[in-house]
Amino acid sequence: MKKDLVISAGSSTLKWKLFSIPDETVIATGLIDRINLPNSVFMVKRPHHDPYKVVKPSITYDLAVTMLLSFLKDHGLVKHLREITGIGHRVVAGGEHFKDSVLIDDEVLAEIHNLAEYAPLHNPVQARYIEIFKQLLPDVRQVAVFDTSLYADMPKVNCLYPIPYEYYTDLGIRKYGAHGTSHRYVANRAADLLKKDLSDLKMITCHLGSGSSITAFNQGHVIDTSMGFIPLGGVMMATRSGDLDPSLVGFLAEKLGISVNEVIDILNQKSGLLGISQLSPDQRDLEDAENSNPQAKLALEMFINRVVRFIGSYVAELGGLDALIFTAGCGENGIAMRERIMEQLTYFGINADVERNNVRGKEQQINQVTDAVQVLVVPTNEELMIARDIQRILR
Amino acid sequence: MKKDLVISAGSSTLKWKLFSIPDETVIATGLIDRINLPNSVFMVKRPHHDPYKVVKPSITYDLAVTMLLSFLKDHGLVKHLREITGIGHRVVAGGEHFKDSVLIDDEVLAEIHNLAEYAPLHNPVQARYIEIFKQLLPDVRQVAVFDTSLYADMPKVNCLYPIPYEYYTDLGIRKYGAHGTSHRYVANRAADLLKKDLSDLKMITCHLGSGSSITAFNQGHVIDTSMGFIPLGGVMMATRSGDLDPSLVGFLAEKLGISVNEVIDILNQKSGLLGISQLSPDQRDLEDAENSNPQAKLALEMFINRVVRFIGSYVAELGGLDALIFTAGCGENGIAMRERIMEQLTYFGINADVERNNVRGKEQQINQVTDAVQVLVVPTNEELMIARDIQRILR
Repeated sequence: MKKDLVISAGSSTLKWKLFSIPDETVIATGLIDRINLPNSVFMVKRPHHDPYKVVKPSITYDLAVTMLLSFLKDHGLVKHLREITGIGHRVVAGGEHFKDSVLIDDEVLAEIHNLAEYAPLHNPVQARYIEIFKQLLPDVRQVAVFDTSLYADMPKVNCLYPIPYEYYTDLGIRKYGAHGTSHRYVANRAADLLKKDLSDLKMITCHLGSGSSITAFNQGHVIDTSMGFIPLGGVMMATRSGDLDPSLVGFLAEKLGISVNEVIDILNQKSGLLGISQLSPDQRDLEDAENSNPQAKLALEMFINRVVRFIGSYVAELGGLDALIFTAGCGENGIAMRERIMEQLTYFGINADVERNNVRGKEQQINQVTDAVQVLVVPTNEELMIARDIQRILR
Repeated sequence: MKKDLVISAGSSTLKWKLFSIPDETVIATGLIDRINLPNSVFMVKRPHHDPYKVVKPSITYDLAVTMLLSFLKDHGLVKHLREITGIGHRVVAGGEHFKDSVLIDDEVLAEIHNLAEYAPLHNPVQARYIEIFKQLLPDVRQVAVFDTSLYADMPKVNCLYPIPYEYYTDLGIRKYGAHGTSHRYVANRAADLLKKDLSDLKMITCHLGSGSSITAFNQGHVIDTSMGFIPLGGVMMATRSGDLDPSLVGFLAEKLGISVNEVIDILNQKSGLLGISQLSPDQRDLEDAENSNPQAKLALEMFINRVVRFIGSYVAELGGLDALIFTAGCGENGIAMRERIMEQLTYFGINADVERNNVRGKEQQINQVTDAVQVLVVPTNEELMIARDIQRILR
């Protein structure tokens, strides 16, 4: 029996999912948390099994992979490790170099390291895990799946910033986008659900989670996305500002007597829904509070406004709209949020269906079926997209 | 005979216009250039007269006003200076304090000084001219007309940035807008031309010059505008970047080894059309070059794209559109530019009329008269708006 392992690593977390191939059944999902920190946690969930959890003094990167592989063997998830025929790694930054997922060799690995300045918290760690798996399972082929490859060929008109051109050619400054695997999955899935070819659709996909991005597809190609040079630009997010008048960075540094890096930290971690509400980055908390808390209400209204504005700007770019897709935490589960967004889009031929919209985490059309535009919830599944990329690249 | 004097002062220029009241005839317009610099120039244009021009070693602020008043008397533009019944001053920054034009007293003057940090190159100079006129013509009432007052009451949802709320309450950070007098003039004039009340129209006004801003009117109120905290944010301009992923400010400072202020200078002076084309900030030069120069073409296409995106986002906010207005240098004279913008707006019910659009600096509908949306060129006239404000405030 063939199995593929999908790895999504952050600086202190390693998420994994084991798929049976070719049927795409999920055998187990796991999370190793607080890696290289005191009290690391190793957790596994399997269908028809109790959750498994152990706490260790501190799990290193190497130990995390060793524990994962031992668990798979010891608990019979694989008979032999050679059942694992492919490993797919989510990699945050692929720059302009990687226009698609790719079989990892030494050159690819070096390039992932080289791109570290575009994702300093992610690329080095993700490269490290690739090296560890290579050491422990030297015969298993590994595939890198980039968050950015969907956007690598975006037209220059859309991906360049209106700043001196040499900053693009010499420093690589452009919009690289984010959540590419998610947008790619839901766009293709939505086309399937609509029984259309993606290349026949003008589609906007809204990945609304703690990080949010909005992507416009035309004739099967991405023509624009909201996320910026790093995942700070674009639409307002849970704790991130999105695009700003750039003068604010200097003004804040001077007024607050702090460094530019500290300003950027504030724009990353203390802005967005949290910054305006001064209450919570979570839209559910704000919805609970908004009747009595004007700043909670304002934060939600600003978020809705910015999403609506991006949708409007992409409708203009696309010259029309066939389908609007909601995904990720808030997109899949934010019933009220989706309804409020749709209420502001009636001019574009969208009328919320309150009954249909009363759904969480389920594939469903949520506007009136007679509308010119189809609005769908499509739960994202980045791991499945990565598993499919492993298949596509390896076989 | 009553006359009103309209003053628009920059750091080294003083533009003035003398109106006959109430008939609003322009008696003369003048420009004093290179103030406080070597070889200052004093110029006047009058209907049916040859242009007048003298060059002086250096004209100070005080001398500029003295020369202006002497010229008016010596050349018979006024019989007595007491024919001047009102003086109107364009003031760049009015903050949230000034929600309308206002009669200037000591308190107003102090507040204009206080707001200097929002317009360091303009407010102090403009306040200085108010003081000089007060000294020389103590009996003449003066009116301040703010570029920002149109936007003072914009909804918080639209004018706040998604950053910590206390930066708004404590530091006054919000979108203040720009070109307010221009947007106000053309919006009202367009409503007249359409024989409608502005309060019945969903209207977007595009002030496209070397500085550009786009404003959305709903039911007679401004609900949004592109320009930011200072006139750097918003849409791409001739040499300015507009809104950006704020991380770029820190990244550029570090990579180029320059200060944040130097980065902001680059974003103000070397970005936009100039930055991308590396040729010229003037769209006419780029249009001449674009067939053989890909960067000139890209710069124009990016500018058009950003204007179209703002229009789309405002159509979404307005929930529709009745009228789209072009004004200022490029908006009034950029025939090809307007046509290319309109070509991308067919989905919104706009079809360019190539014949009608073949017009410069003239009030004219430029799309097909059967369209659902009316697209007009309306040459701006900020001085006339200021003259009318003098009348409104003083009488």
